[in-house]
Amino acid sequence: MAELITIDDPADPRLRDYTSLTDVELRRRREPAEGLFIAEGEKVIRRARQAGYQMRSMLLSAKWVDTMRDVIDEVPAPVYAVSPELAEQVTGYHVHRGALASMQRKTLPGADELLAGARRVVVMEAVNDHTNIGAVFRSAAALGMDAVLLSPDCADPLYRRSVKVSMGAVFSVPYARLEHWPRDLEAVREGGFRLLALTPDEKAEDIDVVAPHRMDRVALMLGAEGEGLSTRALVAADQWVRIPMAHGVDSLNVGAAAAVAFYAVTAGRPVA
Amino acid sequence: MAELITIDDPADPRLRDYTSLTDVELRRRREPAEGLFIAEGEKVIRRARQAGYQMRSMLLSAKWVDTMRDVIDEVPAPVYAVSPELAEQVTGYHVHRGALASMQRKTLPGADELLAGARRVVVMEAVNDHTNIGAVFRSAAALGMDAVLLSPDCADPLYRRSVKVSMGAVFSVPYARLEHWPRDLEAVREGGFRLLALTPDEKAEDIDVVAPHRMDRVALMLGAEGEGLSTRALVAADQWVRIPMAHGVDSLNVGAAAAVAFYAVTAGRPVA
Repeated sequence: MAELITIDDPADPRLRDYTSLTDVELRRRREPAEGLFIAEGEKVIRRARQAGYQMRSMLLSAKWVDTMRDVIDEVPAPVYAVSPELAEQVTGYHVHRGALASMQRKTLPGADELLAGARRVVVMEAVNDHTNIGAVFRSAAALGMDAVLLSPDCADPLYRRSVKVSMGAVFSVPYARLEHWPRDLEAVREGGFRLLALTPDEKAEDIDVVAPHRMDRVALMLGAEGEGLSTRALVAADQWVRIPMAHGVDSLNVGAAAAVAFYAVTAGRPVA
Repeated sequence: MAELITIDDPADPRLRDYTSLTDVELRRRREPAEGLFIAEGEKVIRRARQAGYQMRSMLLSAKWVDTMRDVIDEVPAPVYAVSPELAEQVTGYHVHRGALASMQRKTLPGADELLAGARRVVVMEAVNDHTNIGAVFRSAAALGMDAVLLSPDCADPLYRRSVKVSMGAVFSVPYARLEHWPRDLEAVREGGFRLLALTPDEKAEDIDVVAPHRMDRVALMLGAEGEGLSTRALVAADQWVRIPMAHGVDSLNVGAAAAVAFYAVTAGRPVA
């Protein structure tokens, strides 16, 4: 059972995991370096625990103690009860979800390990917007993609905003970092996966023709909003696919495009 | 050719169309009542003009005059040149896109008129978030839906934020309001459309089975984020359809769900 500790000094060193949460640049350096990430709100905290993440500590305003009582009773980590004002002083914003937890990161699996058990994977290149990363994970989970591989310059799926937008899907879809880009795509291909690059380029083939449902051993490559995949990533792919566009529109947003592409390769009856 | 008028008094009555743009409650009442909407940024202003909307006036900071010169030369409406500071005083925010236009609304077509020429339409119920409305229009345009029908309590597609998120798609996909909800759905059915209600309900059939590509005369019904369609809307539908979900995820966000559903009914080879 956790110890419930009331804190009323914002400079208390025990609150260090929670300082300056609105300073994105600081936090994106600190969190991976210190092996932690922040889960925000009751639902996300519970999902992180269910996914096997260890809790370092929890920060609650007093009225959330009852709601989180079962968690408090189960975890060995300290639980800090603070006033909403103190929470705001420490974190830099009004914590309207009332509960924050500092969770311990796990060692990421290697890409090989993920590919061994997967049928359909997402490969993201340079997606460095936390909202977009979260949205792609949410759709990947919902639509049955088995794993996510990230280029070295993708944003952190465990950053607070990514976790929130994903509704916790970053905990349920396993992911790995590719260290050498785009060279490590070769290992994906050697793992038996066909590399499909999603691009609006007119030379690409329509995804509904290429992927007539329930493809097996497919790696779907996505680039960032606006830029799309780099030339070298496109060159490394086996095939270019596009979502057919109407009304002279040039693109979907990355979240919508990802959802459609995941549906195209996962849904439907198997081809006879 | 437009008259270029320099204004340096924020209380100048000629700027009335642009006052208090950040006051959502005020603007959502005022704009339909006064028959105007605001287009923001060069691209959106040009798309509104291409779609045949008349300009009432334009508000530019000085450095945008050159960029918009061709538009200024073509329109009969007055163009107000102001400092960035004055633009902020009038509108309530920093207008970083540098150009705003007040456009005249058109009379909306009737639902009958839209249905006559359409093959696939979107029906939205109670989607009252401007970002979501804009996202659904953008995907509807990109994925080839022909028209949108709105329940009486849907948000305004011409509200500034809807227009921006849609990337101007609210100008290219025609839409109408249904006055009586859900009674007017009967007219949609009488127009020869099959009413498919999108719902996560387990009693619904998988959309990839129901809609095996290029459906004709289909009306796809969507509800708001979180709530989904109301019971009475579900009862009024011909069939319930769901997007198959994996990993125990309960839903996609409304933008992703809409994109997948539009793809499911529009893409692919026609069924033999």
